[in-house]
Amino acid sequence: MGELNEWELLEKIEAAVPAAGDDCAVIPWGDIHLLLTTDLLHQSSDFPPGTTPYTMGWRVVAASLSDIAAMGGRPVAVVLAASAPSWEDLFPGLLAGAQAACRGAGTELVGGDLDFSQELTLVATALGEAVQPVRRAGAKPGDLLCLTGALGRTALALHLFSRGALEEANRLFRFSPRLQEGQRLAGLATAMIDVSDGLAHSAHLLARASRVGMEIDVEALPLLPGLAEAFPGEAREQALYCGEDYELLFTIPPDRYRPELGRVIGEVVPTGVWLREDGRRRPLPDRGWSHGP
Amino acid sequence: MGELNEWELLEKIEAAVPAAGDDCAVIPWGDIHLLLTTDLLHQSSDFPPGTTPYTMGWRVVAASLSDIAAMGGRPVAVVLAASAPSWEDLFPGLLAGAQAACRGAGTELVGGDLDFSQELTLVATALGEAVQPVRRAGAKPGDLLCLTGALGRTALALHLFSRGALEEANRLFRFSPRLQEGQRLAGLATAMIDVSDGLAHSAHLLARASRVGMEIDVEALPLLPGLAEAFPGEAREQALYCGEDYELLFTIPPDRYRPELGRVIGEVVPTGVWLREDGRRRPLPDRGWSHGP
Repeated sequence: MGELNEWELLEKIEAAVPAAGDDCAVIPWGDIHLLLTTDLLHQSSDFPPGTTPYTMGWRVVAASLSDIAAMGGRPVAVVLAASAPSWEDLFPGLLAGAQAACRGAGTELVGGDLDFSQELTLVATALGEAVQPVRRAGAKPGDLLCLTGALGRTALALHLFSRGALEEANRLFRFSPRLQEGQRLAGLATAMIDVSDGLAHSAHLLARASRVGMEIDVEALPLLPGLAEAFPGEAREQALYCGEDYELLFTIPPDRYRPELGRVIGEVVPTGVWLREDGRRRPLPDRGWSHGP
Repeated sequence: MGELNEWELLEKIEAAVPAAGDDCAVIPWGDIHLLLTTDLLHQSSDFPPGTTPYTMGWRVVAASLSDIAAMGGRPVAVVLAASAPSWEDLFPGLLAGAQAACRGAGTELVGGDLDFSQELTLVATALGEAVQPVRRAGAKPGDLLCLTGALGRTALALHLFSRGALEEANRLFRFSPRLQEGQRLAGLATAMIDVSDGLAHSAHLLARASRVGMEIDVEALPLLPGLAEAFPGEAREQALYCGEDYELLFTIPPDRYRPELGRVIGEVVPTGVWLREDGRRRPLPDRGWSHGP
């Protein structure tokens, strides 16, 4: 097989591993479901210079908990495997950040593994539970397409890292996974995903899993304060494609929608993924943040 | 803090993470316990040249399942996070090996994450369950000290890799975690650990957790066929310190012992960790395979 990028690889995993292909693996367990998800972050592509060990530990745990949130789940426990060239300066901050992210989400870091390697690599695995897990499949034409929070968190953070505004950049990187929002949506949303590789790609994944289309209203996209100043003339581009917003994108029938669940940014249509602007629609390309070889 | 080795780091984790410090984290769950454990392996220290992708995938999963076995648990599901410079030649074999190790243990690979990095790094996380988890703490003076299987598996495999006997070396590397043995010991063994960093270190960890001592009878140590020829005059040294045997070391009161549970290699004593040879005993040093910085 030829050289693959991350998304193509994930599709190959889904083809070979029947239980994969959603934000978490779902394991039926008596009357409920257990959720299991693992996320790998590493220095060269995930932590710009200036990222503190505390932020790194927080972020890898939060990325994993965001997948639990995207199923409408409650986190049960987190384990962390980590490898680095040296632990002398890293360990206390990394551990404190990982534990703080767990505590903030009402869960606990219960174990881990440590090793030595040239590049810092972190893998957080979260265990969760859900009575009624919300999957990527389930959206129906006519459902509203909605989003928690605002877009551009990581785009803005990367901008701030590059300008040396490290404190604010680190603060933005330490996002809170949308667990309460996700749990509130269980039983209401018909499909859900977390926006980890950009809104465009997440919309495509939802559409593909649900065998429907999506139409996104550009004017309705909520942008983080400061994004427009940081990216003059291309804030929406960043909001659509930059990725790692860690908000929840979900679909819900109009009669179940309430504004406190999230903002309406479009609707589910029979086919295609579209961007609506000035009364016209054009195809929304399936591109965004993909780790390449 | 000064530069630490792997064992010192794991002790620091145990001090900071109350739920850590056993082969798995144990999560009370209704009438039973959930088990969660994560293991990181990487190219430079874990996979000698000649290790096939299939063996790598198998081994990282089996290492994680061995921790479930060491608690007397039953595996429920496994997820795999992996990072490599290129996936072209690695992916199919790695996935097939990981899935085969799961199937052999009666469980399933349910998901994963893939990324790109300079060094191949694999992290398997296993979820398990146990009615009555067997911990490292619990050994009592007078208990028998016992071992499943034989020692020297990885020592012999590394020897074969270095001599180019790759097929046999890979076969030895693809060990079967002792799940059935572990489950049979639940309710019988007073303490248990898997031998992942050498028998000597595992005995020290059991002794420390149980606040007792251990005395190991050198003559009783079961060695793998071929180990003595591969390491003339130092087979016992390899058996005590090389590590990654992935057998179960456990303690059990004499009246519960049956030969099919494992071989008696010593006994639990009040204090100290000792090696008995020719009727005399000498201290067994706490050394073995530790990944250094």
